[in-house]
Amino acid sequence: MDHDAVRTLLDGRWAPVRERVRKLLVDPAPRPDPDWDTERQRAHTTELARELAAGGLSALGFDAEHGGHDDIGGSVTFIQTLAQADLSLMVKAGVQWGLFGGAVQALGTESHRRLLPDVISLALPGCFAMTETGHGSNVAAVETTATYDPTTGEFVVHSPTPTARKDYIGNAARDGRMAVVFAQLITPNGRHGVHALLVPIRDEQGQPCPGVTITDCGRKAGLNGVDNGRLVFDQVRVPRAALLDRYGRVAEDGTYTSPIENENHRFFTMLGTLVRGRVAVAGAAGAATESALTIAVRYAERRRQFDAPGRDDEVPLLDYLAHQRKLLPALATTYALHFAQERLVGRLHDVQTGGTTDETAQRELEGLAAGMKAVTTWRATHTIQVCREACGGAGYLAENLLPQLKADTDVFTTFEGDNTVLLQLVAKGLLTEYRDHLGDLNGLQLAWYVTGQVLDGLVERTAARRIAARFADPDPDDPEWLHSLLADREEHLLAGLARRLRRARDEDADPFEVLNGCQDHLLAAARAHVHRWVLDSFDQALERCPDQPTRELLGRVRALYALSLVEADRGWFHEHDRISSSQSKAVIRAVNDLCRELRPHAGALVDGFGIPDPWLDAAMLSP
Amino acid sequence: MDHDAVRTLLDGRWAPVRERVRKLLVDPAPRPDPDWDTERQRAHTTELARELAAGGLSALGFDAEHGGHDDIGGSVTFIQTLAQADLSLMVKAGVQWGLFGGAVQALGTESHRRLLPDVISLALPGCFAMTETGHGSNVAAVETTATYDPTTGEFVVHSPTPTARKDYIGNAARDGRMAVVFAQLITPNGRHGVHALLVPIRDEQGQPCPGVTITDCGRKAGLNGVDNGRLVFDQVRVPRAALLDRYGRVAEDGTYTSPIENENHRFFTMLGTLVRGRVAVAGAAGAATESALTIAVRYAERRRQFDAPGRDDEVPLLDYLAHQRKLLPALATTYALHFAQERLVGRLHDVQTGGTTDETAQRELEGLAAGMKAVTTWRATHTIQVCREACGGAGYLAENLLPQLKADTDVFTTFEGDNTVLLQLVAKGLLTEYRDHLGDLNGLQLAWYVTGQVLDGLVERTAARRIAARFADPDPDDPEWLHSLLADREEHLLAGLARRLRRARDEDADPFEVLNGCQDHLLAAARAHVHRWVLDSFDQALERCPDQPTRELLGRVRALYALSLVEADRGWFHEHDRISSSQSKAVIRAVNDLCRELRPHAGALVDGFGIPDPWLDAAMLSP
Repeated sequence: MDHDAVRTLLDGRWAPVRERVRKLLVDPAPRPDPDWDTERQRAHTTELARELAAGGLSALGFDAEHGGHDDIGGSVTFIQTLAQADLSLMVKAGVQWGLFGGAVQALGTESHRRLLPDVISLALPGCFAMTETGHGSNVAAVETTATYDPTTGEFVVHSPTPTARKDYIGNAARDGRMAVVFAQLITPNGRHGVHALLVPIRDEQGQPCPGVTITDCGRKAGLNGVDNGRLVFDQVRVPRAALLDRYGRVAEDGTYTSPIENENHRFFTMLGTLVRGRVAVAGAAGAATESALTIAVRYAERRRQFDAPGRDDEVPLLDYLAHQRKLLPALATTYALHFAQERLVGRLHDVQTGGTTDETAQRELEGLAAGMKAVTTWRATHTIQVCREACGGAGYLAENLLPQLKADTDVFTTFEGDNTVLLQLVAKGLLTEYRDHLGDLNGLQLAWYVTGQVLDGLVERTAARRIAARFADPDPDDPEWLHSLLADREEHLLAGLARRLRRARDEDADPFEVLNGCQDHLLAAARAHVHRWVLDSFDQALERCPDQPTRELLGRVRALYALSLVEADRGWFHEHDRISSSQSKAVIRAVNDLCRELRPHAGALVDGFGIPDPWLDAAMLSP
Repeated sequence: MDHDAVRTLLDGRWAPVRERVRKLLVDPAPRPDPDWDTERQRAHTTELARELAAGGLSALGFDAEHGGHDDIGGSVTFIQTLAQADLSLMVKAGVQWGLFGGAVQALGTESHRRLLPDVISLALPGCFAMTETGHGSNVAAVETTATYDPTTGEFVVHSPTPTARKDYIGNAARDGRMAVVFAQLITPNGRHGVHALLVPIRDEQGQPCPGVTITDCGRKAGLNGVDNGRLVFDQVRVPRAALLDRYGRVAEDGTYTSPIENENHRFFTMLGTLVRGRVAVAGAAGAATESALTIAVRYAERRRQFDAPGRDDEVPLLDYLAHQRKLLPALATTYALHFAQERLVGRLHDVQTGGTTDETAQRELEGLAAGMKAVTTWRATHTIQVCREACGGAGYLAENLLPQLKADTDVFTTFEGDNTVLLQLVAKGLLTEYRDHLGDLNGLQLAWYVTGQVLDGLVERTAARRIAARFADPDPDDPEWLHSLLADREEHLLAGLARRLRRARDEDADPFEVLNGCQDHLLAAARAHVHRWVLDSFDQALERCPDQPTRELLGRVRALYALSLVEADRGWFHEHDRISSSQSKAVIRAVNDLCRELRPHAGALVDGFGIPDPWLDAAMLSP
């Protein structure tokens, strides 16, 4: 295996950005003392964020005309690489330059974008105040209001109920001066749905602005370097120009106009411009998983326990099948997700910098971002947990870094979109090409309107594919066989879902009951889609690998990824008559065989992630 | 459902002990501030432990003649109930009164037991110094030595290498005065294997004793109220009487004698007396899971998100199938494990207080304790994670208690025996009635010597059972069908394992390779055994329930437990021709149906755990 080839493949299109982050933050590594109190952790994180801004990395994703570099992919790569150095810093940076700065850039117009140089330099620390105590997943239903008062030309921002409180807002408890506040826009003519406004929350002295009550979310499971807080607005007045008005404008006299007529469509277009945050979280989760696996694999290579006949020394943990089973399929999956993430970031970059107005490409990007975010963050939670356990008591000590990785990444499964909600969106997106007419995050009704045409097409495609997969030779080593299994599962699940929905619609059943009854089916379909897309991404990466022996080895990693998916879901493949009992047993054996085969390469495979040693300074790995 | 009947059933045989703990620690609840530094958390925990001692609870498990109450079951119930109040306190108490005090009582003789009143009162805080940096799972290979010097009549306790350092030792970093130190016993006649000695580690002023170097393990993922530390001994001399000499004695002239000749057998007999710790950890993990589920179910009942057609208000989370799927099978499993734990504690009590010398009962107890510890702690880690995610961002805030539950219980999967190692012991124990001749935690060779007789018996029993299960009606509601599926899986896995081992032995294959290749099979067999035993325990509990409607409802809970196990492992049942595709799909449907059926009872079911409100004071649940 050619180490450079693997490294080049993994570092990918934005390798130079990865290298800049690695160089900037290694001396010293940004490791907070785990015994620091919350305030000291926050101060440390803010200090590090200033270093990043000074180093110029924060500018990457912004418009060139406002001090940026128009490098969307670079900006996401920057954020996700930070996750290997310090996850609080990653989230702090993500809030400031991704969410806050990103909203100003994407939802604002020229007058707002003039703030961007201060956003980039951190002279203007900001918040992204969308989630409320009462509404997180259903953000279209936030209760905060922004009511236009034509007599003064101002908006009145207000929290009408206790549940309208903005909650979990990063940068709010300590540092933020300004917030992008999402609120129901009301003019004398009526309500226009959720819009975003720039609302100052602290003055130059750091005191809350009049009418703004700021409280602290306090200690969290992790990410305690990020100052999450709560904002309550009591009739706070801001000028008309505070409205980020790219998708909705209020004239001085109170007349509302928008380039997008449908309120739902408008809101989801606005949300769609913010997809970058979700992509970055997926990448950060993957990056943190790489850190954990690097630590656990290196420990498993050196840690020995129990004698074995015919061996002089005790056996290294990684020689045990049970230990290989814990770490190596996880490593293969992490490679797969890494390549898929690289592909996703590339697509994000191309869609957002290409000036494309291709709605289909945008919708597909949103679906992939949602699906990858859910799958990658759940894998991260699971894998980091397994890594902790694989290091025994040592893995529980802060000095060995795994506790912090675990605690910091835990919230990824539910922030930037709850995973369970996201996967349902993915499935519904796949079911319909008509989302524009249905665009409504209150998605239970969403798939209801799927046209017969779409369903029929799906049913037909699946039938053909099914036959192909069923009669294939049961060869776990055949890349085509694995691909056809995963692709067939995806299509069968989608077609089955479509059939269930159509039947229920024809029978005029209660939509809530029907869709609720399908929830597990929806989730399975979405997962199957992502798994197949990730496998495709692995195949594309293999094609880019110039070194034949490396490509072959990575081909085995790819097989382990796919086989471990089939193994985990082999109940489904049986139920649907896709694999025989002997094929199923062959899959289990093949996973075991691949674990043994890849075991000698595990160290080199984690080295490929290229994480600087100072970021992995676990005491148990010291010489 | 009769709430009192459920509560009585769950509180079980040691209900009065549960009530004492609940009353002692509710005003105020022992909640440390999550922002406290490590020292302050430790001081708080020590203070609480003193309250427990003052309240008399610490005496429960000790001999009546030394100030105790001979109530082993009560002492374990006491420790596991603490887990619902404060997990650091539970571990601190477990170290002092379970591990340290338990070792003095079980391994010492009269002169040592005279210390017990001071152990009970906490006048003598102590440590259990078994694990070393180099050896955790393979404790028979600890490197610390205790060499008898007949010229002075003393033992010299010494750490000969860096890896001989005692590590992760609770009570060592701050409070401990004395340690039970496990060391290789050496006399002029030779080595006698691992024995335990009482070694003072701090003087009256709290300074380390001469030759003892104490360092701090520092911050951990959780349990930061417990002062874990490291001990290094440099030729520390202790009197001959320091040896806990119930199972091995050194005369003044250095002559070694023991009631148990075989060194391995002796060591595992000594370890066997300490089984209580493992039982308590299983119970504590279950108890913490009950706390997490109570919080998550109550939140899911009140938290609403998304409108649905025909409903006035948004839909409570617990009405969604996906949410029910997260919480209700977990709740059913938690009930099942609760009843199994009650049974296990009862058996422990009866074995340890009955003065029984029945080796089979003791071995079976050890196997069940190991298996229950592994299964319950893994379920705890998984379920508490799911509960955290089911509460979204709120679940990530310390004020909602789930982060602390997660972080504190995380280490349970690897301490008091690594789960993966424990499950292998369970399987090997099941394979042989001849453990005495094989007794060796270096267990890779263990199952090697299984006699043909045992195997043949297993193979026959399984064949009969298999036919019964296979042709049964596919009725997920039939308790017998579920039981026969689980019992058949257990026996088939064991018999298959035995056949593989016998074949390999006949072929004279390399034992390490063979046993390593079977590791996943071993783990599956052990899990299947525990799952079936837990189901039996549920059935026994149902028989004790006097109220018919309650028994029926709990019967549905039992069905959900068993069905969710079958569903999770349906790939196996297919592969082995135990269920058809239609049965498999019926199982999935039955799980969904049971989720819907039990949803209205979820609140009452978690109320049944009887956790005092002050222990569940989550901000998000405040009125």
